[in-house]
Amino acid sequence: MTAHWIADRTRVFDSSGIRKIFDLAAQMKDPINLSIGQPDFDVPEPVKEACIEAISTGKNGYALTQGMPVLRDKLTAQVAAEYGHADRKLFVSSGTSGGLVLTMLSLVNPGDEVIVFDPYFVMYDSLVRLAGGVPVKIDTYPDFRIDVQKVADAITPKTKLILLNSPANPTGVTLSAAEAEGIARLAAEKNIALLSDEIYRKFTYDEPFVSPARFNEQTIVIDGFSKSYAMTGWRVGYVHGPAAVIDTMIKLQQYSFVCAPQPAQWAAAAAMDVPMESHIAEYRRKRDLLVDGISDLYEVVKPGGAFYVYPKAPGGSGAAFVEKAIANNLLIIPGNIFSQRDSHFRISYAAADSVIERGIEVLRKLAKK
Amino acid sequence: MTAHWIADRTRVFDSSGIRKIFDLAAQMKDPINLSIGQPDFDVPEPVKEACIEAISTGKNGYALTQGMPVLRDKLTAQVAAEYGHADRKLFVSSGTSGGLVLTMLSLVNPGDEVIVFDPYFVMYDSLVRLAGGVPVKIDTYPDFRIDVQKVADAITPKTKLILLNSPANPTGVTLSAAEAEGIARLAAEKNIALLSDEIYRKFTYDEPFVSPARFNEQTIVIDGFSKSYAMTGWRVGYVHGPAAVIDTMIKLQQYSFVCAPQPAQWAAAAAMDVPMESHIAEYRRKRDLLVDGISDLYEVVKPGGAFYVYPKAPGGSGAAFVEKAIANNLLIIPGNIFSQRDSHFRISYAAADSVIERGIEVLRKLAKK
Repeated sequence: MTAHWIADRTRVFDSSGIRKIFDLAAQMKDPINLSIGQPDFDVPEPVKEACIEAISTGKNGYALTQGMPVLRDKLTAQVAAEYGHADRKLFVSSGTSGGLVLTMLSLVNPGDEVIVFDPYFVMYDSLVRLAGGVPVKIDTYPDFRIDVQKVADAITPKTKLILLNSPANPTGVTLSAAEAEGIARLAAEKNIALLSDEIYRKFTYDEPFVSPARFNEQTIVIDGFSKSYAMTGWRVGYVHGPAAVIDTMIKLQQYSFVCAPQPAQWAAAAAMDVPMESHIAEYRRKRDLLVDGISDLYEVVKPGGAFYVYPKAPGGSGAAFVEKAIANNLLIIPGNIFSQRDSHFRISYAAADSVIERGIEVLRKLAKK
Repeated sequence: MTAHWIADRTRVFDSSGIRKIFDLAAQMKDPINLSIGQPDFDVPEPVKEACIEAISTGKNGYALTQGMPVLRDKLTAQVAAEYGHADRKLFVSSGTSGGLVLTMLSLVNPGDEVIVFDPYFVMYDSLVRLAGGVPVKIDTYPDFRIDVQKVADAITPKTKLILLNSPANPTGVTLSAAEAEGIARLAAEKNIALLSDEIYRKFTYDEPFVSPARFNEQTIVIDGFSKSYAMTGWRVGYVHGPAAVIDTMIKLQQYSFVCAPQPAQWAAAAAMDVPMESHIAEYRRKRDLLVDGISDLYEVVKPGGAFYVYPKAPGGSGAAFVEKAIANNLLIIPGNIFSQRDSHFRISYAAADSVIERGIEVLRKLAKK
């Protein structure tokens, strides 16, 4: 009997919701798949070539804990040029997830409260709880905008961290400059840590991207190459923020992730010189294709970034609607994976136009039923 | 002020010892470097080719959480052929470190005791404490053999896990069949989890390798490709053990490491067919070169595996001796990094013969002083 060996903290992770979808999906033959959280294009050729060159020339051993200079120095210079913050330091993480895990372990004591905006990226809730923290959810339905006063009202003496994500998964909604500034100044005033997850930053379509770090020098920023360069399977991200926080994360990385894969770091350095504007324009077009295709029949907030749309489910239950969609060969994700509410569903338009069009067709049919 | 943001658990990590060595090392010009914990050969060509092929053909997206079938199925078959345990399940981790982190988070509750043999791999102590556990150190000086009765005496109602490592870092010592069987049966009898870290398994020189899993079906085994195929910077390991434990680790991986890098998993599958005997024979020869070169002047246990030798420091302090060695341009690691004692030092012979020979020369000179 080994079941009693399992540690209590593992109970905070419930993958049953996602698992149910995957189980249903496994039974589908050639589904119309609008569930994927990664680009449908491949890693750009010059980036592949840089990775292959690194492998061929023997850059295969451990990377430095904080990242290889070829990448870290270049990122540090880029960040310094953007912000010019005296105390800002950077390290290379194993994807943005690695950065998230290390942020939680570095900052959250058992009992600390972490403010999370609902709906949220699936990992946020679980990682806060893994560290023994208490996620304090701020509901942002129906427009997914951030009400700074609501945040101020949610702050208690136990609040350690505010977790922002723009462009957001699952809604695609982007922070306005006023929202970014409001949250940034509130966090500074209350001396609460502010984490800005900017993994979808390059996928911003309408307004220029605004980071709260512009308004708060102590903002911790997580970014990476996974989404922008289709390098999700290469595990390279980075985190920058106050030196004391980053030094702690580097120390923890030594005993956990060890390092981000070395060849992929050389490739990421090369990626920084590869223009992705045409890919981004393509995704803007795909967004419009999807939103225009369903917005007369669905209640939908037009997203300013990422590659997701998060409409309200006809009938009221996202879970029930997704089951119907799957019965019609369309794979999408129910909102209750990302939220305390079960009222919406997530569509990813990181897919070929033909797949998006077939998806629209099924969605239109389902809305009219 | 951000210093008060830092979580308490991060204080259990003290990298000052290693850091001091690195700081000293940074001032050395072309040191005789016998400190390295990775092979001095490069990734074998067929393995590089498999990785390049995976990258070129677009295998760059997220891997499945539990590992790509190309690798996982092959490893599962290999493990089944070796043990034939009905309840044994396997997943692919981000290096053996990823496996270690997930084992601790999956099994260790705050206050649980974990038996660790001193000297130990640096991560063990810190990871147990990261999970809130209490490392219970069993001293194995001077011969680094395991006394099963000592382990039995150390077991309390709070003992959750015993952590074995053979061949061991930093001593290179390998478990005898009697030791493996003794510990395995003790763990089974007491229903305590047993973790066997077998990352140096392929580097076994004198006796056939013996895993405690041969004698205890519920042994959790961690292994990987980093050391055997010089893939340390590629982050691919694997863990096999009781299904309930492995399922928990896969669940946690989803929210932390996400997956081991995908192209490296294709490469690891290819690596399984690459013979490494000539490399292993080379390392056996290097071991003999080093041990024969110093054993008349140093108290040294001839190691049966890995690529480390762990002699007693003349003068009694490993730390003081290493400072002297560094003053003579020889970079080695003081034993107090790996131990509660400061009496020994670690030499790595994963180096060119010429470097080992220069190291022997300095060591002989220092012993005669």
